[in-house]
Amino acid sequence: MSDVRVVIQRDSEREERVVTTGTTAADLFPGERSVVAARVDGELKDLAYELREGESVEAVDISSEDGLNILRHSTAHVMAQAVQELFPDAKLGIGPPVKDGFYYDFDVEKPFTPEDLKAVEKKMQEIQKRGQRFSRRVVSDDDAREELADEPYKLELIGIKGSASHDDGADVEVGAGELTIYDNLDAKTGELCWKDLCRGPHLPTTRNIPAFKLMRNAAAYWRGSEKNPMLQRIYGTAWPSKDQLKAHLEFLAEAEKRDHRKLGNELDLFSIPDQIGSGLAVFHPKGGIIRRVMEDYSRRRHEEEGYEFVYTPHATKGKLFETSGHLDWYADGMYPPMQLDEGVDYYLKPMNCPMHNLIFDARGRSYRELPLRLFEFGTVYRYEKSGVVHGLTRARGFTQDDAHIYCTKEQMADELDSTLTFVLNLLRDYGLTDFYLELSTKDPEKFVGSDEIWEEATATLREVAEKQGLPLVPDPGGAAFYGPKISVQAKDAIGRTWQMSTVQLDFNLPERFDLEYTGPDGSKQRPVMIHRALFGSIERFFAVLLEHYAGAFPAWLAPVQAVGIPIGDGHVPYLEDFAKQARKQGLRVEVDSSSDRMQKKIRNAQKQKVPFMVIAGDEDMTNGAVSFRYRDGSQENGIPVGDALAKIAQVVAERTQI
Amino acid sequence: MSDVRVVIQRDSEREERVVTTGTTAADLFPGERSVVAARVDGELKDLAYELREGESVEAVDISSEDGLNILRHSTAHVMAQAVQELFPDAKLGIGPPVKDGFYYDFDVEKPFTPEDLKAVEKKMQEIQKRGQRFSRRVVSDDDAREELADEPYKLELIGIKGSASHDDGADVEVGAGELTIYDNLDAKTGELCWKDLCRGPHLPTTRNIPAFKLMRNAAAYWRGSEKNPMLQRIYGTAWPSKDQLKAHLEFLAEAEKRDHRKLGNELDLFSIPDQIGSGLAVFHPKGGIIRRVMEDYSRRRHEEEGYEFVYTPHATKGKLFETSGHLDWYADGMYPPMQLDEGVDYYLKPMNCPMHNLIFDARGRSYRELPLRLFEFGTVYRYEKSGVVHGLTRARGFTQDDAHIYCTKEQMADELDSTLTFVLNLLRDYGLTDFYLELSTKDPEKFVGSDEIWEEATATLREVAEKQGLPLVPDPGGAAFYGPKISVQAKDAIGRTWQMSTVQLDFNLPERFDLEYTGPDGSKQRPVMIHRALFGSIERFFAVLLEHYAGAFPAWLAPVQAVGIPIGDGHVPYLEDFAKQARKQGLRVEVDSSSDRMQKKIRNAQKQKVPFMVIAGDEDMTNGAVSFRYRDGSQENGIPVGDALAKIAQVVAERTQI
Repeated sequence: MSDVRVVIQRDSEREERVVTTGTTAADLFPGERSVVAARVDGELKDLAYELREGESVEAVDISSEDGLNILRHSTAHVMAQAVQELFPDAKLGIGPPVKDGFYYDFDVEKPFTPEDLKAVEKKMQEIQKRGQRFSRRVVSDDDAREELADEPYKLELIGIKGSASHDDGADVEVGAGELTIYDNLDAKTGELCWKDLCRGPHLPTTRNIPAFKLMRNAAAYWRGSEKNPMLQRIYGTAWPSKDQLKAHLEFLAEAEKRDHRKLGNELDLFSIPDQIGSGLAVFHPKGGIIRRVMEDYSRRRHEEEGYEFVYTPHATKGKLFETSGHLDWYADGMYPPMQLDEGVDYYLKPMNCPMHNLIFDARGRSYRELPLRLFEFGTVYRYEKSGVVHGLTRARGFTQDDAHIYCTKEQMADELDSTLTFVLNLLRDYGLTDFYLELSTKDPEKFVGSDEIWEEATATLREVAEKQGLPLVPDPGGAAFYGPKISVQAKDAIGRTWQMSTVQLDFNLPERFDLEYTGPDGSKQRPVMIHRALFGSIERFFAVLLEHYAGAFPAWLAPVQAVGIPIGDGHVPYLEDFAKQARKQGLRVEVDSSSDRMQKKIRNAQKQKVPFMVIAGDEDMTNGAVSFRYRDGSQENGIPVGDALAKIAQVVAERTQI
Repeated sequence: MSDVRVVIQRDSEREERVVTTGTTAADLFPGERSVVAARVDGELKDLAYELREGESVEAVDISSEDGLNILRHSTAHVMAQAVQELFPDAKLGIGPPVKDGFYYDFDVEKPFTPEDLKAVEKKMQEIQKRGQRFSRRVVSDDDAREELADEPYKLELIGIKGSASHDDGADVEVGAGELTIYDNLDAKTGELCWKDLCRGPHLPTTRNIPAFKLMRNAAAYWRGSEKNPMLQRIYGTAWPSKDQLKAHLEFLAEAEKRDHRKLGNELDLFSIPDQIGSGLAVFHPKGGIIRRVMEDYSRRRHEEEGYEFVYTPHATKGKLFETSGHLDWYADGMYPPMQLDEGVDYYLKPMNCPMHNLIFDARGRSYRELPLRLFEFGTVYRYEKSGVVHGLTRARGFTQDDAHIYCTKEQMADELDSTLTFVLNLLRDYGLTDFYLELSTKDPEKFVGSDEIWEEATATLREVAEKQGLPLVPDPGGAAFYGPKISVQAKDAIGRTWQMSTVQLDFNLPERFDLEYTGPDGSKQRPVMIHRALFGSIERFFAVLLEHYAGAFPAWLAPVQAVGIPIGDGHVPYLEDFAKQARKQGLRVEVDSSSDRMQKKIRNAQKQKVPFMVIAGDEDMTNGAVSFRYRDGSQENGIPVGDALAKIAQVVAERTQI
């Protein structure tokens, strides 16, 4: 037994300590129940890891990102053990942690039923209570093969360790380096209960799992390829406390209620017909109104900011994307070519920028014209894998509110500043108000342009970002090769973060397109180019707003702003007249003159989430008034018609939510 | 010599006459110099044709459509003779009449120079003065082969007579039936001067050619295929009088000045970059303004008429076009497929209708919702042959102002009536005022739907068309197989006719998509479907208006409505203030504060065809006034600023041309 010197790192504090041989990471954090693993010299380790001379150790809390991943990974092991105890013939696939939870894939004869899932969950609770230890053991490839002879998928992974990856981006559990098996050992007897080929690390024992729940099951191909066997995947979630689990389940229920695909159908806004294809939506009349109002308002604001509107086609010769370089580095994201004119490849455009460059370059440009801000609602097509396509938020065809700003180096700072301010203000107008910014900076391995221009541009971006007084998250090395970027992350009503606008510098395309302007001295100069999308995709922004508002749009965006509800048939003409006056002011007002009873009409309007229900009966007619009923059920009676019209018009004009 | 009874037909008058054997058609119209051929029992014949018992004869006047074709065809022969007299090695291709003229193709060693064309024209004048007779002669295939042994292309035509057609739609000169040669014979000696394999008929002599001119030459593949030898084509024009030739040349000069491709470049409105491909235009900022104003106004008017706006994608699974039938009967007009998801063909849409049908069908429909009018600015892609693509008027990608109306049979008449009225009024708003209508009716060989519905629909279309009080031209058998159609033909400022709007009934798609609505009695009913495009293509309509106005758009459409021109630098702030006030009213006003002199600024504004030049000097500033200068050079001085702003706003609001 000898001395081992280690360093304990907490936040920015360092504590040097001398311990004896055999001291584990756990020994450094006695009584800290929330510490579930350790980061030793940067690598995640089990708490049982025995410390070595000179190592630096950090506690991993169960609530940290690493801690949550370990919790969920261990819970996946517990689930797999439970499944194999209940279904001894089930063969193991892989079982990684994923966002908010975990899954495990199994080769079983028939899909799991809801009852099966309940039984598995119950068995997991048993195992959790047993307090089995997770125990790491290094094995040779040959030994692993022998031990796992009954697990054909694990055997396959032994062969390919280090190179396996998965369709949804989750790493499989075997990595480069040592091959390890984790044994689940009985708390008292130390007897082997279950084992898995796994890189780890894991929780100390199953008792460290505070709260979990199985969510659903689904089919999934082994290693994501249709050529492989179909496995059955069970998804679960696990949390550091029962309260957090409960909050997560409530959040999921709320998110499901707000699912834009569900609301899109209920409110008759859009659909994604199977005959057209996934990721390609059609907007129905009511969705068309919302989208058009969104576009019109954006357009008006852009015009006020000095943007000029262009139109470009959706298809082009491949030559253009050779010039731009997209066919070199973005071909996978593009639809396959169409051959026209006996041998010329045409492509759907995945981006608008090359076409805007052609407009810049259509004639000589003078410094007097800069900054030139070309804007387009440009529809692009991207070949997203069918597995990742999701409603309007991840589509195969969508319309960008896409602008490219060409300016001089001297104008760059002002332009970035005003662009970012404009972008944030516009997002606020649509009702998003909670932001942080992300600054993606140079990947030293992969960039074009001089260090000098990167430094200057990055400093400028940081400066204008800081000026906004918003949290600024660094994303070092996260920039695309062609320039640094600010992205705006917005939180919605239930706290989800959406990446919205991006302001992206580009040092590559002006070179590739040999863009030039004539300076005041007559010399040819290269302009700076800024890509700038605000919604990113109108379809996606539409979906974000739909979920943010849970379909209850503020009146300025609502497809129907007010609906007239007569107490009896005799009040229909009175409300029709009201509607006519409102429409003259450009308001979208309907009257429900159907044969439904009044209560039914109110329910219908509420289901359609119409901001103003305008109710009228005898007394209202006598007084030249109407009553307002709002979506929350509150009511305001006897409002003179003129005031009622003015109120609706004001709420629309001021874009307020009611 | 015996009696031959013939009938002379003039307009609706019949005159029976008895003539002797050997009487020619010419003998029936003595002294009528404008008669150049005859229509005998419906077939065109030379005037030298000897009449036979019972035949009915009509004079063909040189100014009639047939007469012009014959004149131009004969002039083509004269040109070919002239070319072969000057270039004895030239081999003959074909030489048909075409719109406003003719061409002839030659296989020659090198392209004709402008000097060559002058020499050919001079030689043609000689031949014209010689008064050679055109003389028809029937030949056997073998004799023709022997006589034309030196003309390889003619030999090829002898082999394929009757089936030859040409890339631009002109028939070649050999047809089914007898093979004939036309000899050009010396007026005095009767000696053979030249001959051509030709179906005829022709003018009596070359003296019957009143006026002609060679226009240009171009390369053309033999029989339109790139696989064949390249020939040299000379285009010419010929007219019944020197005045008409002169008028035609003036018209061409005017049309060239108005060519939308030329104006599009001069006014910086749009371009068709080679890197994108022919038929695929980009709209520059100024063109973007015009297009947007066109679209916005159209949209507003459509909203007022109860149309609802939808959005649909540009690409779709082929399945949709199988359902619609387009892949059966329109595949040639479509871009080739793109294969996604390992085996699913996706296509760019050539039409929007199938997608609108999916929106109709997205949920159950009630009779209460009809007529449902779905409108979209829908961009479609059509694979036009590269030879016919022309600027914006015949493009490969364009945006339709496309609407589909779904209504009950009872609503059909009212709907057609209001649609046609709406369409014509909207075209008038854009400045087109001279129309005729064309009614395309059933092709008895090819139609779907019952005779009854065709008759009813055609009667309704005729009725609503006649109600407009416009000329109505029948187009019997011209309807598409799926329904009858009214098309609106509009004349532009220089008298050219453009097919604009179409109102098309469709008895096919509602069946194919199994579209239904629930009637008042609860039964399922099939809706009537009306396709209705007003501009047809926004790009094409843009081009038509650009040519119609020769770029001098009325102020409401002009990209810059007024430009401030200071007499000296000191007047710039005054005009900037004027511009600021104008912009507050939504007007598009700029100030030319460049270092150019005032006269240069005026010239620039005139070149840019800006409707209002707003000039200000010391006196104006003192009086709070400005001066207007118009595009025609006229000027209006000392207009108080308020009045000037009001005048511009009024001209814009009323959409008047100044």
